[in-house]
Amino acid sequence: MTGYQLSSKKRFVEQLGEAGLIERISKKFLVDKQTITVGAGEDDCAVIDIEKAKGGYKYLVVTTDTVQESTHFPTGISPFQIGWTSVAVNLSDIAAMGAHPFAFTVAMGIPSHTETAFMDEVVEGIEKCASAYNTAVVGGDITKSKEFSLTGTCFGFADKPVRRAGAEVGDLVCVTGSLGNAALGMKLIKKEMEAPKRVEEAAKMTLFQPMPRVKEGIILADSGLVTSMIDISDGLALSLAELAKSSVVGFEIYEDKVPVLSEEIRSAWEGDFDLSMYGFDLRELAFFFGGDYELLFTVDAQVIENEEVLEMLKREVKMSVIGKVVSAEEGIYFKTGEGKKKEKMEIKGYQHF
Amino acid sequence: MTGYQLSSKKRFVEQLGEAGLIERISKKFLVDKQTITVGAGEDDCAVIDIEKAKGGYKYLVVTTDTVQESTHFPTGISPFQIGWTSVAVNLSDIAAMGAHPFAFTVAMGIPSHTETAFMDEVVEGIEKCASAYNTAVVGGDITKSKEFSLTGTCFGFADKPVRRAGAEVGDLVCVTGSLGNAALGMKLIKKEMEAPKRVEEAAKMTLFQPMPRVKEGIILADSGLVTSMIDISDGLALSLAELAKSSVVGFEIYEDKVPVLSEEIRSAWEGDFDLSMYGFDLRELAFFFGGDYELLFTVDAQVIENEEVLEMLKREVKMSVIGKVVSAEEGIYFKTGEGKKKEKMEIKGYQHF
Repeated sequence: MTGYQLSSKKRFVEQLGEAGLIERISKKFLVDKQTITVGAGEDDCAVIDIEKAKGGYKYLVVTTDTVQESTHFPTGISPFQIGWTSVAVNLSDIAAMGAHPFAFTVAMGIPSHTETAFMDEVVEGIEKCASAYNTAVVGGDITKSKEFSLTGTCFGFADKPVRRAGAEVGDLVCVTGSLGNAALGMKLIKKEMEAPKRVEEAAKMTLFQPMPRVKEGIILADSGLVTSMIDISDGLALSLAELAKSSVVGFEIYEDKVPVLSEEIRSAWEGDFDLSMYGFDLRELAFFFGGDYELLFTVDAQVIENEEVLEMLKREVKMSVIGKVVSAEEGIYFKTGEGKKKEKMEIKGYQHF
Repeated sequence: MTGYQLSSKKRFVEQLGEAGLIERISKKFLVDKQTITVGAGEDDCAVIDIEKAKGGYKYLVVTTDTVQESTHFPTGISPFQIGWTSVAVNLSDIAAMGAHPFAFTVAMGIPSHTETAFMDEVVEGIEKCASAYNTAVVGGDITKSKEFSLTGTCFGFADKPVRRAGAEVGDLVCVTGSLGNAALGMKLIKKEMEAPKRVEEAAKMTLFQPMPRVKEGIILADSGLVTSMIDISDGLALSLAELAKSSVVGFEIYEDKVPVLSEEIRSAWEGDFDLSMYGFDLRELAFFFGGDYELLFTVDAQVIENEEVLEMLKREVKMSVIGKVVSAEEGIYFKTGEGKKKEKMEIKGYQHF
């Protein structure tokens, strides 16, 4: 598996048998029995006390997402990070609704010759990501398969889930955090460019172990000012296109306002960095690549007049205003600075087919 | 895919693109917007109004299960039946809790060269099985993968979910329906034996398009007499072993009371059928094979004295009493007729590893 080896005395999952493997995995996932009456590996289904689980929330939100060897595991990712990622990509969808994650199930496709130690680390990664975001792993399934895959399903609760539809002309277009970090990591792995070691480590960390913006999604939903939201898993351009389609609007994007590369990466890069020497630019990293798992959202423009809220959002969700909502007829385009020409945005990014 | 071809002018999913494929699939899954505010393909998550969905029920039950090409698709299964099966195997777990299924998500691993027509039939199978059991398909995911796979996650509601733990010494051991039909289908496909065409068709139908015992599970739970329950997906022996372990009991099984092969198959078999001529027996089909998706359960022995309830259970859930619960120390054994010797049951069946 991804070139990973633990010791010379290998043990493989097939030696444990199905029952042994389920038992080994299940005991890692302990749950609060007051709310989750039946947890992973205990019965045909997990059983959750609805009233205790939902608290005062009105809506249950559900999402499912798969990560697998041939598509999602960049060279160098650890088994822990594979497990982590399978939870993180699902939590990112929960975050995009502004919802509170609650429970997670994971169906694992496992080749026979997978090492037990590899599985243990995958399971550790799943557990650590779930518990970091107050999410209980309540169930799962194991299947022998040709390639390693993890399909997660995540449940959460919300009172006012933020939809993709809802952006109005005049709203501000915003993102959380910074973009292009995962793309940079991928370019470094593929040796398409070079960078100082600290830059490489930070960029790979974004790629290998994404931090879904769950807290940020909740703060944004609670602000009452957010009119639409989506996560940026496949690059900013594709996410803008999805949001535009759902909300039936267009976007004017100020390229120079898009936060490309994290502070950590920028400060670690000694001296100037000029990506054009490698034949690509910052736009390519932020708009057309993906893997950053930040949130793209629109807010009512009145937020600008409310300095207190604006400061809170900049501080708590690291919000950057990157454009404004225009009519659907105008489409999605770049416009940098007043008086400059509009340039139609190419809609491309990571797509499975 | 499984040798399936529709026409000489093939179209493949890669020609549709990811967005096109999601749109094509999502529009097949219509939901009641009063309860499911956001359905498949509409947003980052599905959104469900909890109060409206759960009605008066106290517990949410959740299960996840994968079916995939290399493990679960017997020769001759149609794409419709592959889709159907992905829902049915999950519903069988919901049935085993005596719960009411409500919603389903499906993550699809799709090789690039999958025909669009094949996918359409898979989706049709998913939709038809879900709606046959009052279950809404509320979300999904598509990933390009090496082998075709469908990971379903099903959730439902229950007031008193029936656990695997709960069987008491003296309870009766029972099953729904008949066993060995899917195993017979597999033996016929593998040409390990021969049978009349009608027998072959009926046996293959059980194997290709399982009918989860959802209604039966609910009736059993509602009866208040069932002390433990599990589905029989991997053969009766393994399910007995699981139930014994969870309930900390043993089982005395009357082999001649186990309903092997359906009425339909028995009546279609002209004259006597003697499986021993093929080198195996009915025990092998019913106990050690799997694929029937019936329910195994224990009931309070007082049901015998309540003729009305007993008749109802025999009629409505096609219940057969196949043994009784004994102490854990006694283990699991065959005993046929009074005075006969006990014979320890071998615990084997379908296992992934």
